[in-house]
Amino acid sequence: MRIARISRPGSPAAFARLEVRTAHLLDAAPWLGGRETGEQIPFDAQALLAPIVPTKIVAIGRNYAAHAKELGNDVPSEPLLFLKPPSSILDPGGAVRLPSASARVEHEAELGVVIGARARKVAEADAFAHVFGYTVLCDVTARDLQRKDVQFTRAKGFDTFCPAGPWIETELDSADVEVALRVNGEGRQRGRTRDMIFGVAKLVSYVSHVMTLEPGDVISTGTPEGVGPLVHGDTVEIEVAGIGVLRITCARDE
Amino acid sequence: MRIARISRPGSPAAFARLEVRTAHLLDAAPWLGGRETGEQIPFDAQALLAPIVPTKIVAIGRNYAAHAKELGNDVPSEPLLFLKPPSSILDPGGAVRLPSASARVEHEAELGVVIGARARKVAEADAFAHVFGYTVLCDVTARDLQRKDVQFTRAKGFDTFCPAGPWIETELDSADVEVALRVNGEGRQRGRTRDMIFGVAKLVSYVSHVMTLEPGDVISTGTPEGVGPLVHGDTVEIEVAGIGVLRITCARDE
Repeated sequence: MRIARISRPGSPAAFARLEVRTAHLLDAAPWLGGRETGEQIPFDAQALLAPIVPTKIVAIGRNYAAHAKELGNDVPSEPLLFLKPPSSILDPGGAVRLPSASARVEHEAELGVVIGARARKVAEADAFAHVFGYTVLCDVTARDLQRKDVQFTRAKGFDTFCPAGPWIETELDSADVEVALRVNGEGRQRGRTRDMIFGVAKLVSYVSHVMTLEPGDVISTGTPEGVGPLVHGDTVEIEVAGIGVLRITCARDE
Repeated sequence: MRIARISRPGSPAAFARLEVRTAHLLDAAPWLGGRETGEQIPFDAQALLAPIVPTKIVAIGRNYAAHAKELGNDVPSEPLLFLKPPSSILDPGGAVRLPSASARVEHEAELGVVIGARARKVAEADAFAHVFGYTVLCDVTARDLQRKDVQFTRAKGFDTFCPAGPWIETELDSADVEVALRVNGEGRQRGRTRDMIFGVAKLVSYVSHVMTLEPGDVISTGTPEGVGPLVHGDTVEIEVAGIGVLRITCARDE
C-alpha cells in the first residue's frame, strides 16, 4: 500500500492511499488511526508533500562500511545516532537551499523507516511490528561544517536538508533493496540495504532502548558509498527499489 | 506572567495562566494563539506538567567558559548546536531514569528560551520579538556515553533526560539571572547568564539562520560550571532566579 500526503487547494493537506490514478483521502495520519473518508480525488504527482510528520528524525551515521571508509571513518561497533530537526523536511519536487555558510553540501541517499506504533525498549524480534512502512530520504549534509563542528547538528539541520518522499510503501521487504542516487541523470550512489552494518530491526530496537519512538517518527538508516557535492541547478533523483523515485533540485539560498 | 501546563483528572492537559492560588485555563498553547477560556481552577503544584511541547529542542554546548574548561574543552567561536528529542522531556516532580548503559549520568542546569513566533533568519536586534518566555531545564547527560559516541545524541537523548518547568515566565529579563542546581540540598552549580559566551539574542538569531524555529520550540542555553553525577535516590532542585524551582528525583531505570 502506498500512503502519500497531498496538498489540496483551499483545504488542509491530507494523507491518502494512492492507487494508480486515484488518491483515497484519509482523515488523519494512518499511524494515528486515520481512516479513509470515502472521498477520492485524481492523483496528481505535483501535489505530493513529504509523507512524514515526525516528532523526531533519528538518523544513523556510518551504517555502510564502504561509506564509512570513503570519509575516512571506522565502522562503528554500535549504531551512531544523530537527530535531524523536523524543520529540515523538504517536499518532493522542492529545492534544497544551499546555505552560504557552507562551501560543500553533499547528498546522502537513505532508506527511511516510518514508525507505526510507539516503540520503547522493543526487542529485535518485535521491531517490525512497530514499523508502518518505508520512504526515501536524502540526508543532505554540509560536509565542511560537519568536519568543523564535530557535532552533526548544524551541518545536517538546515531547512530543506531532509527531502522525503515521494510516498510511504507499507509492503516493502527492506532486507535487500537497492538505494540509488543520480545527479543530473548521472549515477552517484548505488548500494543495497543488505550491506547495512545494522539492519532495520536492530536499529528500531537500539533506538527504542534510548528514546521512545512515537508513531510517525522516522529512522534514516544511513547512506551507501558515493556521496558527493550538490551545486546550484542540480536535479537529483533518489530511488529506493520497491518504493519509488524522489526528485528534488538544488538552489543557492537567497 | 506565568504560563503552566497542567494535568486534570478526566480531561486533557491544558495550558493555564497562573496566579498565586488560581490557574486560568487556556484553550491552546499561548504561542499557538491560545486564549483564556474563563474557566479557573485552584492551583495545584502536583498537577504541573512540563510547560513545553516543542517540535524541537535546540541545545547549546560549552556556552559558559568555566564549564567548557571543567570538561577540558575550548571555548567555541560559534554556538555549538545539538538537539534533544521531545521524547526526553520530563515533567516537574518526575524521576530521571538512570539507564543501565551509562555509569555516569550528570546534571546540567540551564535557562530555557521558549519561542513565541516563527523565527527564520532573524537579526539579533529582532530576536526578543520571537521569544515567548523562559523556563528551567536540566540537560541530563550520560557523560561516559557522550565521550564514547562523540556525537551527543544518545548521551543526551534518553527518555527523562530533559526535565522542564515548573512553568514559563514571560516577563524575565534574561541578561543576568542566576542559574543554580542543588542535589539533596547541597549546592552544585551556580552561575549567572551574563557569563554566557553567546547571549539569548545571539542564540535565537544564530539558530534561526540554520533552522526555522517554530512557536513553542525551545533553546537550552548551556550550563555553568559545577556539573556532577546523579545517582539513584537523589533529589534535585534546579532554579533560575525570576522563574522558579524545578524539582525532580533520580532512579535507576528498571
